[in-house]
This record gives sequence, structure tokens and C-alpha cells, in this order.
Amino acid sequence: MKKVGIVMGSDSDLPIVSKAVDTLRAFGVPFEVHVYSAHRTPAEAAEFARGAEANGFGVLIAAAGMAAHLAGAIAAQTTLPVIGIPCQSNTLDGIDALLSTVQMPSGIPVATVAINGATNAALLSVEILALTEPTLAAKLKEKRVKDHEAVIEKDRAIADRL
Amino acid sequence: MKKVGIVMGSDSDLPIVSKAVDTLRAFGVPFEVHVYSAHRTPAEAAEFARGAEANGFGVLIAAAGMAAHLAGAIAAQTTLPVIGIPCQSNTLDGIDALLSTVQMPSGIPVATVAINGATNAALLSVEILALTEPTLAAKLKEKRVKDHEAVIEKDRAIADRL
Amino acid sequence: MKKVGIVMGSDSDLPIVSKAVDTLRAFGVPFEVHVYSAHRTPAEAAEFARGAEANGFGVLIAAAGMAAHLAGAIAAQTTLPVIGIPCQSNTLDGIDALLSTVQMPSGIPVATVAINGATNAALLSVEILALTEPTLAAKLKEKRVKDHEAVIEKDRAIADRL
Amino acid sequence: MKKVGIVMGSDSDLPIVSKAVDTLRAFGVPFEVHVYSAHRTPAEAAEFARGAEANGFGVLIAAAGMAAHLAGAIAAQTTLPVIGIPCQSNTLDGIDALLSTVQMPSGIPVATVAINGATNAALLSVEILALTEPTLAAKLKEKRVKDHEAVIEKDRAIADRL
Amino acid sequence: MKKVGIVMGSDSDLPIVSKAVDTLRAFGVPFEVHVYSAHRTPAEAAEFARGAEANGFGVLIAAAGMAAHLAGAIAAQTTLPVIGIPCQSNTLDGIDALLSTVQMPSGIPVATVAINGATNAALLSVEILALTEPTLAAKLKEKRVKDHEAVIEKDRAIADRL
Amino acid sequence: MKKVGIVMGSDSDLPIVSKAVDTLRAFGVPFEVHVYSAHRTPAEAAEFARGAEANGFGVLIAAAGMAAHLAGAIAAQTTLPVIGIPCQSNTLDGIDALLSTVQMPSGIPVATVAINGATNAALLSVEILALTEPTLAAKLKEKRVKDHEAVIEKDRAIADRL
Amino acid sequence: MKKVGIVMGSDSDLPIVSKAVDTLRAFGVPFEVHVYSAHRTPAEAAEFARGAEANGFGVLIAAAGMAAHLAGAIAAQTTLPVIGIPCQSNTLDGIDALLSTVQMPSGIPVATVAINGATNAALLSVEILALTEPTLAAKLKEKRVKDHEAVIEKDRAIADRL
Amino acid sequence: MKKVGIVMGSDSDLPIVSKAVDTLRAFGVPFEVHVYSAHRTPAEAAEFARGAEANGFGVLIAAAGMAAHLAGAIAAQTTLPVIGIPCQSNTLDGIDALLSTVQMPSGIPVATVAINGATNAALLSVEILALTEPTLAAKLKEKRVKDHEAVIEKDRAIADRL
Repeated sequence: MKKVGIVMGSDSDLPIVSKAVDTLRAFGVPFEVHVYSAHRTPAEAAEFARGAEANGFGVLIAAAGMAAHLAGAIAAQTTLPVIGIPCQSNTLDGIDALLSTVQMPSGIPVATVAINGATNAALLSVEILALTEPTLAAKLKEKRVKDHEAVIEKDRAIADRL
Repeated sequence: MKKVGIVMGSDSDLPIVSKAVDTLRAFGVPFEVHVYSAHRTPAEAAEFARGAEANGFGVLIAAAGMAAHLAGAIAAQTTLPVIGIPCQSNTLDGIDALLSTVQMPSGIPVATVAINGATNAALLSVEILALTEPTLAAKLKEKRVKDHEAVIEKDRAIADRL
Repeated sequence: MKKVGIVMGSDSDLPIVSKAVDTLRAFGVPFEVHVYSAHRTPAEAAEFARGAEANGFGVLIAAAGMAAHLAGAIAAQTTLPVIGIPCQSNTLDGIDALLSTVQMPSGIPVATVAINGATNAALLSVEILALTEPTLAAKLKEKRVKDHEAVIEKDRAIADRL
Repeated sequence: MKKVGIVMGSDSDLPIVSKAVDTLRAFGVPFEVHVYSAHRTPAEAAEFARGAEANGFGVLIAAAGMAAHLAGAIAAQTTLPVIGIPCQSNTLDGIDALLSTVQMPSGIPVATVAINGATNAALLSVEILALTEPTLAAKLKEKRVKDHEAVIEKDRAIADRL
Repeated sequence: MKKVGIVMGSDSDLPIVSKAVDTLRAFGVPFEVHVYSAHRTPAEAAEFARGAEANGFGVLIAAAGMAAHLAGAIAAQTTLPVIGIPCQSNTLDGIDALLSTVQMPSGIPVATVAINGATNAALLSVEILALTEPTLAAKLKEKRVKDHEAVIEKDRAIADRL
Repeated sequence: MKKVGIVMGSDSDLPIVSKAVDTLRAFGVPFEVHVYSAHRTPAEAAEFARGAEANGFGVLIAAAGMAAHLAGAIAAQTTLPVIGIPCQSNTLDGIDALLSTVQMPSGIPVATVAINGATNAALLSVEILALTEPTLAAKLKEKRVKDHEAVIEKDRAIADRL
Repeated sequence: MKKVGIVMGSDSDLPIVSKAVDTLRAFGVPFEVHVYSAHRTPAEAAEFARGAEANGFGVLIAAAGMAAHLAGAIAAQTTLPVIGIPCQSNTLDGIDALLSTVQMPSGIPVATVAINGATNAALLSVEILALTEPTLAAKLKEKRVKDHEAVIEKDRAIADRL
Repeated sequence: MKKVGIVMGSDSDLPIVSKAVDTLRAFGVPFEVHVYSAHRTPAEAAEFARGAEANGFGVLIAAAGMAAHLAGAIAAQTTLPVIGIPCQSNTLDGIDALLSTVQMPSGIPVATVAINGATNAALLSVEILALTEPTLAAKLKEKRVKDHEAVIEKDRAIADRL
């Protein structure tokens, strides 16, 4: 199975990124996690992205805050699908990271998820890998069923909480 | 090769969506285009999404404006990767569509591209399909080379335009 | 008397929704509360909305956060009036939910109240039901009088608090 | 049948409001249209609202731009349901009118529709009146069917337009 | 000397408004404080404003949050200068109150100060009254001198704090 | 009668400012108009403001766009009331000028009107001068009556325009 | 004299960038203009930046729109001062480019000017070079004097235009 | 070596500004820190700026919040490069200060850094001074190497933290 590569711009993003890690583990998807900054280690970030396909990665996830260039910098170096997680920082509530990640110019797409949406970034990477991994496709469907049941259960229980 | 399914919420989105169509044609990716509204034809939109995997689709693209629910409604019915294009409408410059598309709750991801970013939506779908289609991967790399050369050419020419 | 149906997208919205519940109880309006997600249980949400008129509901209220599709998804399935409560979540202060709820395309209206405005959502549903329930109309007028008197009382007391 | 009262803050809002008029005419709903400003004719606006219930109105619609106080000022004087249409003006793209209309404090709800959303305001008023007018309920369902068919027809035609 | 009338939309605005009270006391300007809601007590608010000139007021200050209509409603009833204080509430950081207060249509001005800017609202009212009260003008100039000296003093002290 | 001083940051603001001029002429208020930039002619702007009181001005109006510092720079040099008009420029729709004008720190108030709200700036200055000029107060009340009648007339005519 | 290097992300930015070129020419500052995209030609952009100091550049200016990463990508590769011009594009009025340019993380500064502020970017580069080029410092002061006189002249002329 | 002049609008900005102080100390750059308000001490702020070049300053840094005029007011009085730090205050998350600082009109540039970005303001000033101070240039490159190594080290350590 191809690996998912997760890159965060700073280890201060780890509390958010760890939700992606948990999700990938739950699906049994192999992954690597790196700390590469688009600005402090641009060469390493670029090298990682350029070599990703040859190194067995199928999808890359990049998480960064503020002027969040990381996902775009990664996407510029690979034709693998790249998923961007805009991270909320101390000011502006994440809207800076969202716009810096999603408003990519034509030619270099970044698949952007919600601000701090690390779980969905991981799920999206699993959906992509599942196109050729029937076991992942099956697990995704199972998760949907469980999520569905959890809501139904909460619906049943809600009357007692009012 | 798996197909890309493009759904637009209204045929008024066609001028934007047609850029995605052009891109998929250039890559030789089979596709279908539909007009399904999350609000006026929710059953058809859902049915299309639910049947998409069985009907040979590998990626779905949804384009909508304003309170742009289409991508999320599609994503709720399939575990295929779903790409959302937020479309600019007469007020608010597309920020309503962007937030309605990207801020999905945990569990149902939508891979969101820039406002009106139909070309990138198509490219992202090609990147996903390319994971198992070496010819697409090669074409993507060719396009990157051409895009690169076009910039280099513009750089050479810029001095004469000043 | 027709019932009010309250649907929340997640039971984490309960602290907000409970203000609507309190208000309906105070008015003696029959109601049901459900947890249905537009994305995790779209079929149940749609089924509830489609059957609402036949099941004795007169107004539906939907509360959701982030890319808040619930009210629109409910409204797409019924011609009953649907009231949307945009809920504030961890980022963006509720503006995402507000725009996702209020910016509905032509044809499917959602009566949107303020961010977290659950009390007003309930009052609006009472105003609608009061068109055919004189006792509710009377109670609404009484509440207005009481609210008015409370302000007058606070005005009288304010000088002593300075 | 109860009447719908439409109030606009300025006759410059007529191009937007006329969509509501067209919709009400199509449904055969009796209505009155007034120009009352919350700021230039506050007494007339208040008097109209206070007398609305006695004068046979069932729903009021208020359209205004900028610091759009009209819907709130109307709602303060009646317990009839009041629908607010935020109108786009020369600056700020309507976000000022949206926030001024929707962010009502607890106690006085305004059912807000999209910026310039006059058609939906009218449809919402019809949905409310339809609770006691079976012919209106039937017409609403017919319109939904027609809207549905129009989308289906556009979907059939879209392939030829690509 | 003419009085300043301060009206707040809710006594929950008192912590903000009290800064205006303190400032007026420091200047020896006579004032009255009222709690009148544009929505719950519109008649009282209007009556207060209509009678303000005859009752010896020279300037009115109105403080409100969310869809902050109070200053505009007051201004609609008097040709005295009206100052608006947009108050921050639980969501949207006060931008809703700012736009609802400042974006007044032509004909009815509201002199708007910063979000929560109660001190400046009071100072502005003093500046207006000072046009005919030389003692106030002198006190304003004294305050400017003191404020100036306080900054100069802080400048002198800053080196020791580094 | 005291004069109104109008300062604009650039003569490109004249189309907006001319509405203030028209209004002051209609009221017979003496005024002077100047072009002083807070950044290109800070000394002249400051000198004008410092001398304004002695030179017979009662109110100052400052109009500027973008990082609109002019009103604040004027206000820093006088204890006369200063009214700020935020002017819309080519980007950001005037929100930059609004925030730069209204969000003044404690101690130096600027009475801010709507974006491009030059008519209201002039009316506000008239309201301030009217505190000691009974003829202005009478004219303001006449204008309110005329504005009121104009709306009433439009209300009478609206039915024929539908 | 050291050169100024101007890089634009796309030649569609030329109409904006040409204002910077005009300014540098007026000051007699040597410059080079390049078209390098942070995403399509990241290696060339990086190489240009890394070699800039050795190649005789003293300041770099980068202009880009949307998710404007160019200035940050340049800044990551050099310790020369880097000035960023956020360019307005078809949606969002340039706020995306502004936040993507200015909200740089600690360690890699970008000196950001106004949206489309190419003239100021050039002036800022001249100010920096002027620290060691007395003739530039003199020219800057001359320009300030001329700008000052132009305003004074407009002030003299304004009365005739009213 | 030329000095860096740091001016803050209020000593409440010291916690932010102190990061700039720490950075300049680490680089051995001489500096002065002042508290001058654009509004309470405009003359002192202007005088400081006008004399800065003669007094041995090479770069000025100005930090202010809300309607942050300080950097622009400083820049209006000198042709030295001026760096602006927009400071976050209690409302609006710093967006008011950012726009007030960065959106300068043509002619008077302010080199704006991120909201609260005092470290980057200091680094930018060092980059400017380093153009003629080889030791600073060397230290900047050393810091880049250290920052780079710190990220590499965090990358090595991240696997153990998952």
C-alpha cells in the first residue's frame, strides 16, 4: 500500500496533526510524519516532495498556519495529490491560513480541508488510496456506518437529555 | 480508466465548470457532466453519488455558489474523493461558497480548491486517477514541464515589454 | 396544535438548542428534538423532513455549525417553513455557519436567525404557529409586555448602579 | 387569505423587491407594498407594523440596505412573523445589511434570507400562510416539482452544451 | 449646561457604558443614563429622543451590540447630535454592531466611535458641548496636556523596563 | 456662525466630498475646503487643525481612503469635534478606511460616518452647530419634515410602479 | 549602486508592477525584472533569490496574487530585505494575497506594502538603498518636497472647483 | 553602525515590542525604544522621525494597535525605511491595525509585518542594516542556519512524539 506523507510547518502544529495520525493508524495506512518549514527548510520540503512518488508515497498532507505556504510549496514539486490543512494561530482565527492554502493559482492544486481539519485530511487521503485498496474502501464504508449509527444513537438518547 | 463525475448546482455555473471539462479532455480522462441541485434535486444528486463507485467513477467534482452545499451533499453519499469548487456569485465575492464548501465537519471531507478554481479541480482529479494510470502521471509531468517553460519564456520576454 | 421539529446536526449543539427547547416549553408548544446530521445521516434527515407535514409538524428548526448544510437540506425536502440557527464553532466565530445557512439559492428559503440565536428561532416558530393559535398569539403579546416591563424596570434601577 | 405586507426602506430597493411581488402574484397571495423608512418615517413604519395583524396581514417582509434596521423596527412592533431581506448597496457587498438584519437580540426575531433574496422572502411568506391555506401548500409543492423538472431538463441538455 | 443623555440597549452593556459615565463625571457634565431597547421598548426610546432637546439635553449617546439599531433609532427622532457606541458581544467581535451603527443611510447621521469606545463617546460629547462652554473647552485642553505628559513620562520610563 | 472646515486627503476624494459641500450650502453654513494629506503635508494638516478654533471653526470634517489617518491626525491637534468620512478606494471596498477612521484609541475621538457618507458628515456638523444656532435647528427640522414627506410620497406612488 | 530585483508571479501582474519600474527609473536605480512563479518555477525563483546578493542586488521585490507565496519563497532563500506586493485578482479583492504575503511566521520577514502598492514597494526599496547612496536620499527628499507642493497646489486650487 | 529606533504607541504594546528588543540585542544592533503616540504626542513622534536620520538611526520600527496610525505618521516625516507592526487589541483580532498600517497611499511606504510580528520587524531592520554591515549579514546567515537546524532536529524527533 502506498504511504501517506504528513508534513507540518512547525511542531507546534502537532496537536492538530495528531488527529490525522490517529485516523491513519485506525485505518492501518502506512505513513510518515515530518517537520519541514516552507520558509526555514525549503530545500528539505522540496526534496521530500520531489522524491515522494519514488519513495512510495501516494498522497501528501501539509499542515501550516498564518501565511501557510507549505501545502503549495509541496504541491509545486510533485504531481501526487496534496492535501492542505490550514491551522488556526493566535490571530485572525485561521482565515489567513485558509486563504493562503486554498487560493492556489491555476496549475498547482491543493485539496484544502477545513481550518484545523486534520481528521478529514486523513480521511481524504484514505479515500484516495482506497481507489486501489479494496480493504480501505471497505473500512471507509464501515466507518460511515458507525458514524451513522452513532448519530442515530444520539438521536435516540437526546429526548432524555432535555 | 475510471471516470470523473462533474456535478454543477446550476447551469449558470457552466462558464466556470467548462474549464474543468477542457482540462479533462486535454488529459483524455473520461467524464460525465451533470446538473443536480443539492436543494432542487437532492434525491438525484444523492442517487448519483451513491451509485458513482459502481458506475465507474473514481473522483467526483461538485461546483456550486452561495450556500454551496452540493459538494458536501455528494460527499455524504460516497466514499469516493469529492472535490468542491466554490463559485463566485453576485454578492460576497465567493466567500460564502468557499466557507460552505471547505468548513466540512469531521467525517465527511471535501477537497476544496480556490474560488472558481475549476481547472485545478480537474487537475486534482487527474492527480488522483494518475496514482493508478501511469499515462496520466506522465501527462501531468509533461504539463508541469510546459507550464514551467511558459513561465521561463515569459521571463525571457519581459524585459522587452518594460 | 401543530408541533415544532427541532433538528441539530450534532449533540454538541445541545447547549445552544436547549434555549429553544426552554422557550417552546414556556409557550406550551409541542415539539420533538432530533439529532440528524446532513452529512452522516442524510437519509434520516431527509425522511424526517419529507414526513414532517404528515406527522403533524408546522415548523422545523435546524441548528448546525461550520459548513452548516442542515437547514438547507431539511428545507429541500419540505414546504413547511424551516428556521436555521447558525452555531458558533471553534474557528471563525460562526460566520461560516451564518453564510452557509442564510445564503440559500432562489427556490428553497431558510429563515435564518442570529448566530446561536436559538431563543429567537423558537419565538419565530411560535409566531408562525400563532397565526392559527390565538392562545399562542396572546402569550407572545404577554411576553412582549413582560420583556418591555423588564427593560423599564432596569431603566428605573440603573441610576442606583452607577 | 391573510395578506403579506412588503415594506422597503427606499424605493431604490424596488428592483430587488419586485421579485418578491412577482412571486406573490404567481401564488395568488394578496399583498400590499409600502415604502417606509426606519429612520425617515419611523412612526409610519411602526404604525403599519402595529396595525398589521388587525388589518389582515399574516406575514411582513422588510427590505433594506446598509445599517438595515427596517426589519428589526417592524418586528419590534408586531408578533406577526417578520422576514428580512438584506439589500446590497454601493459598498461592502451587502454584508452590512445582512449583519444588521440577522443579528437580532433575543426576544425579537427576524427571519432573514440571503442578500437580495427577495424571491425566497416571498416563498417563505407563502410557506407560512400555506399552513392554513391548502391551495397555497399545493402550489408550493407544484413549484417544487417544476423547479425539480427544470433542473432535470437542464441536466439532460448539458451534454450538448459542452 | 446642556445634559448628555446616555442610552444603553441592555444593562449588560453597563460595564462598557460606565467608562462614559466616569468621563462625564470627571468633566462635571450633567448626564442621565437610561436603559431603553430599540426593540423591546421602542416607544420609550423614541419618546426619550423626541423630548431630549426640550428636556435640556445637548447630545445623546447610544450603546448597543449585535444588530445595533439603538443609535439609529434615537437619531431618527431628534436633530440633536447622536453618538453611537458599537458593543462587542459573544460572536463576531463587534463587527456586526459597528456596521449596524455606522452604515446609516443619508439623512440620519450617527457619530460612531470605536467598538466598546465609551470613553471616546463621552469625550466627543464634551467636545460638542464645549463649543459653548469655555470651562469644558479648558478642561479638554487640560486633559490633552495630561495625556500628553503621561506618554512623555512613559517614554522616559521605558528604557528601565527593557 | 462658526465655520465648518472640510479637509480631504486627496483631491480625488472631491466627488464624495462635494456632497458635504452641497449640504452645507443648502443650510447656509459657512465653510472652508482644504486638501491636506496626513502623510504628504502633515505639518499643514496639523497647523490647520491647531488653529481651527482660533480661526472661527466649530467643527472639522476629514475625508480619506485606504489607511485613512487624516481624521485622527486632525483630531490629535484640536479639541473641536472632528468628523471622519471613510472613502472607498480601488480595493477592499472601504473597510480599510472605515477601520482606520473609527477604531481610534481612547482619548482622541473621531465621529465616524458611513463609508462615503459625506452628506451625513455635513448634517452631523450642522446638528452640532445647531446647538447654538436656532435657525440651523429649524432648518434641520424642516429637512426632516421634507425627507419624511418624500418617503410618504414615494409610498403613495409605489403601487403604481408595481 | 546595488540593484533592485523585481519578481512577479505571472506576467498578468505587469500592469501593477510597471508602476514600480517607472519609479525605479525615475530614481535612476538599476533593476532587473523577472517572471518567476513560486509554484511553476520554484527552482528558478529560489536560485534567483539565493544568488541575488552575489549578483549585486540589494533589495528584492516580489508581486503575486491569490495565495501569494512568492515573496515568502524568495525571502526564505536570502537575507536581503524582501518587499511583497499583494496583487488584487478576480475574487476577494486582494485580501487573500495580502494575508498570504504579510502573515509570515517568525524568522523570515516580508516587508509588505498595500494591495497593488507597487509604487510604494519601489520607494521602499529606494529608501533602503539610500542608506548608503546619498544621491538617492537627496532624490527621495526632493520627491517628498514635490509631493508636498503638489498637495499645496491642489489645496490652493480646490476652492475654484467647488 | 546605524541605530534602530523603535516607537510604540502605548506602553501596553511592550510585551509585543520586547520581542523586537530581544532580537536586536541578540544581533548586537544598537537601538532606542520610545513611547510616542501618533495622537497624544504627535509633535514628539514627528520630531523624533524628522531628526532620526541626523541622530544616527538607519531604520525605524513603529508598533501600534486599533487605528494604527503611528507607522504612517513616522514615515510621513522621514525618508528612512519605516517598519510597521500591527498590534492585536481587544476587538477585531488585529485586522484593524493591519489595514491601518499596510494600506498606505502612494508616496509614503510602510514596510508592514504580520500582526504582532515584532521579531520579524527586528529581523527586517537587521537585513536592511546588513547591506552595509558584513558582520550583521554573517549573523543573519548564522541564524538562518540555526533555524534550519532546529527544524531538522524537530523533524528527527517528531516520530518519537507520535
